[in-house]
Amino acid sequence: MNYSIIRYILCRVLEFQALFLALPCVAALVYKEREGWAYAVVLAGCLFIGVLGKMKKPKSTEFYAREGFVAVSLSWIVLSITGALPLFLSGEFPSYTDALFETISGLTTTGASILSDVEALSKCNLFWRSFTHWIGGMGVLVLILAILPLAGGYNMHLMRAESPGPTVGKLVPRVKNTARNLYKMYIVMTIVEIVLLLVTGMSLFESMTLSFGTAGTGGFGVLNDSIGSYPMMSQAVITIFMILFGVNFSVYYLVWRKKFSQALHHEEMRYYLGIIVGAVLLITFNIREGFQSLLDAFHHAAFQVASIITTTGYSTTDFDVWPEFSKVILVLLMFVGACAGSTGGGIKVSRVVIMLKLVKNELSYLIHPKRVRQVYFEKRVVGKEVLRSISVFFIAYAMIYGISLLLISLDNLGFTTNFTAVAATLNNIGPGLEQVGPTANFAVYSQPAKYVLMFDMLAGRLELFPMLLLFAPSTWKRR
Amino acid sequence: MNYSIIRYILCRVLEFQALFLALPCVAALVYKEREGWAYAVVLAGCLFIGVLGKMKKPKSTEFYAREGFVAVSLSWIVLSITGALPLFLSGEFPSYTDALFETISGLTTTGASILSDVEALSKCNLFWRSFTHWIGGMGVLVLILAILPLAGGYNMHLMRAESPGPTVGKLVPRVKNTARNLYKMYIVMTIVEIVLLLVTGMSLFESMTLSFGTAGTGGFGVLNDSIGSYPMMSQAVITIFMILFGVNFSVYYLVWRKKFSQALHHEEMRYYLGIIVGAVLLITFNIREGFQSLLDAFHHAAFQVASIITTTGYSTTDFDVWPEFSKVILVLLMFVGACAGSTGGGIKVSRVVIMLKLVKNELSYLIHPKRVRQVYFEKRVVGKEVLRSISVFFIAYAMIYGISLLLISLDNLGFTTNFTAVAATLNNIGPGLEQVGPTANFAVYSQPAKYVLMFDMLAGRLELFPMLLLFAPSTWKRR
Repeated sequence: MNYSIIRYILCRVLEFQALFLALPCVAALVYKEREGWAYAVVLAGCLFIGVLGKMKKPKSTEFYAREGFVAVSLSWIVLSITGALPLFLSGEFPSYTDALFETISGLTTTGASILSDVEALSKCNLFWRSFTHWIGGMGVLVLILAILPLAGGYNMHLMRAESPGPTVGKLVPRVKNTARNLYKMYIVMTIVEIVLLLVTGMSLFESMTLSFGTAGTGGFGVLNDSIGSYPMMSQAVITIFMILFGVNFSVYYLVWRKKFSQALHHEEMRYYLGIIVGAVLLITFNIREGFQSLLDAFHHAAFQVASIITTTGYSTTDFDVWPEFSKVILVLLMFVGACAGSTGGGIKVSRVVIMLKLVKNELSYLIHPKRVRQVYFEKRVVGKEVLRSISVFFIAYAMIYGISLLLISLDNLGFTTNFTAVAATLNNIGPGLEQVGPTANFAVYSQPAKYVLMFDMLAGRLELFPMLLLFAPSTWKRR
Repeated sequence: MNYSIIRYILCRVLEFQALFLALPCVAALVYKEREGWAYAVVLAGCLFIGVLGKMKKPKSTEFYAREGFVAVSLSWIVLSITGALPLFLSGEFPSYTDALFETISGLTTTGASILSDVEALSKCNLFWRSFTHWIGGMGVLVLILAILPLAGGYNMHLMRAESPGPTVGKLVPRVKNTARNLYKMYIVMTIVEIVLLLVTGMSLFESMTLSFGTAGTGGFGVLNDSIGSYPMMSQAVITIFMILFGVNFSVYYLVWRKKFSQALHHEEMRYYLGIIVGAVLLITFNIREGFQSLLDAFHHAAFQVASIITTTGYSTTDFDVWPEFSKVILVLLMFVGACAGSTGGGIKVSRVVIMLKLVKNELSYLIHPKRVRQVYFEKRVVGKEVLRSISVFFIAYAMIYGISLLLISLDNLGFTTNFTAVAATLNNIGPGLEQVGPTANFAVYSQPAKYVLMFDMLAGRLELFPMLLLFAPSTWKRR
């Protein structure tokens, strides 16, 4: 392990954290809230340590996959620990653990809260909560790669460790330009959503915070009933933008480059949209009797399906009272998740589709053992290494799932609550069912259980291995 | 598809079914029950069709993996359909669907019942229910291979399709001798258990039926409270034999050949016993306050862990009222299952261990991408094909799980009930939690849901692919 370069990267991350914290400071000034001092103090601390720590250049520029994974996971931990400080110092959170849970939930774009009364928070805290979604959605290291003139081979390792999906979503050959293009599209789409929400009658504060939550597929709202009390048009705008932010960003890059036909034939996007349409129709039919009109049922079904498959986690209604069939569809969508290369979490549509194709392939192999068999995706043969890594990902996923479920069951809550609590955190969704349902929150869990769920949120966002590697002794050996 | 050889094998299976049905006929004679006529009629029918149908020799002896899979899955379906007839004709089951559910549950060694009052059944029906466990435990095709002089290459394909585990458990080079040795050990161990249960004071009828249920890791009892009202010594004998029948039978072959050291170092058995010890200790500690003494808690914990990990499904107490932590341990054990090459179901200890090693391997690969990496099991390198097939098995398993959960949720029962109902059937266990818990039964489900669960039981017993292949159109094409 090249410790000096890790230190250097973490210090740069702290500098960026100082930059991020400037925004809630501005919010505090605008709304004249004294909670702003907490942000100012932490900002100063991050800046001081960051600037001081990076003055000593790293001894060696040796940087391999291992350093990439560790740099990314430690960066996210540092962002979480420092990001939780102003929330805790503001006195609006019962404990530092709770503030940390909320921050990790924000950065990992989970949106699971330990608060029952969100409306009691100061505006600057609300703003920061939502803004962490926006930062975490596209990724901090990706942002640093886009801005800083980092040379050498290590950008690729950082990009790989922070970007979701079975393969790395490089839009253009150079990592720096890829990162820039991603952020350009991300910013433009966020601004468009803010403007549209303003048009539907929301305040600027609500438009911004909810757009941050949609863009990052996060899910923190600013009202206690999430999105329930906004007009139907605002809900519809959010539905559409949730779906848009769950699409693989390389589709938007194709659109930008005017390659419309290629964009339309993007296989992952087609499966993703197909699943959404199927799920919305099934749920609409299943819940129609609980709503005044079929349109009403369709509206809420569409919102909830979009919210869950993109792993955002907003809600317009308490889907925990829906029939079991609709709830199971939502639970299954939690696992599928959004597209790779989007801001959403979960296993990812491309992985699920490739796994389905693997099973189909196995069947035809059993029938014709001598025939050559390949798995095709996006019109290309999926390499053996990618197939292996997807399978191992799925196995590791199931194992983390089982262990987490066992550990949090020590709190003696019900099976459905525990099962969906892990689903909601490991897939970065937010609400689950029963005691962690859309009208409830994660305060029911004990502190140890909260730490398990925090690990799950980070593991889910970073796609398991960066977090698992922190526990492998050989990660920490010097070369 | 070579249809004529499939027909030939199915007719031989019917002849064997006639042989099996002779036993409940004897039971009916002994207990002077008029329900015996149902068995006699079905016996005659099976014998007639079997003898008549096999008179025409198959046109071609072409027999490949495809024929093996189809022969096995159709054999099991034929055994289920004919085996359910006497139960239905006896008038003691509300519908043919229920009788079929009970028979599939018996043959697949699941032990999930749709009856609330087992004690009301006639002795010959009780005997048949338990005897189906014994037949299904070691496998019908394996029995046929052991007895009939089948020549040609097809025994291996049949053995492979019916035997559980990631690789085929051949004890000796010739399939016929392997099958014979397996059945010899199976019979000896069953007789020993019957004798020991007699010694603890059980009647011959109870000793036989419960030993059949233990040997096949089935779980049908003859009393309404399963094993709850038998003396502690009888329960202890059953605990030990459940664990013994969950061990890979190649261990017993090693013992038989006096290779004690090799038997002791059998890796799968060691993991299996390790998991049992760990689970029993954790549960004993967790449930100790609900029992009169620590020994009492240990006794029930050991019984229940042995019952669940071996996928037997007997119970001595209502574990649905245990603390959530203990219940989650049991649910996780449902998935692990017994050893490959045993009569138990589930994913199998060897697959779980190899999957864990795959994840560990991936971590060290991420740290040192250039180092050669291999997975070792039972002191050998696990081949790439086996690794691939284990991964695909797990993926197919998860998919069948998700689809089954979705389909049965249409009945609108609770999530925990549905989740554990699929776990209990796909892993061939028997009881789940809540409405399918140890004191409840599967009568709560509608007929369509019962067919889904019947499919799961068969898929679980035959390790997924033989049943999935029935749905692949190319399976049915002529060459």
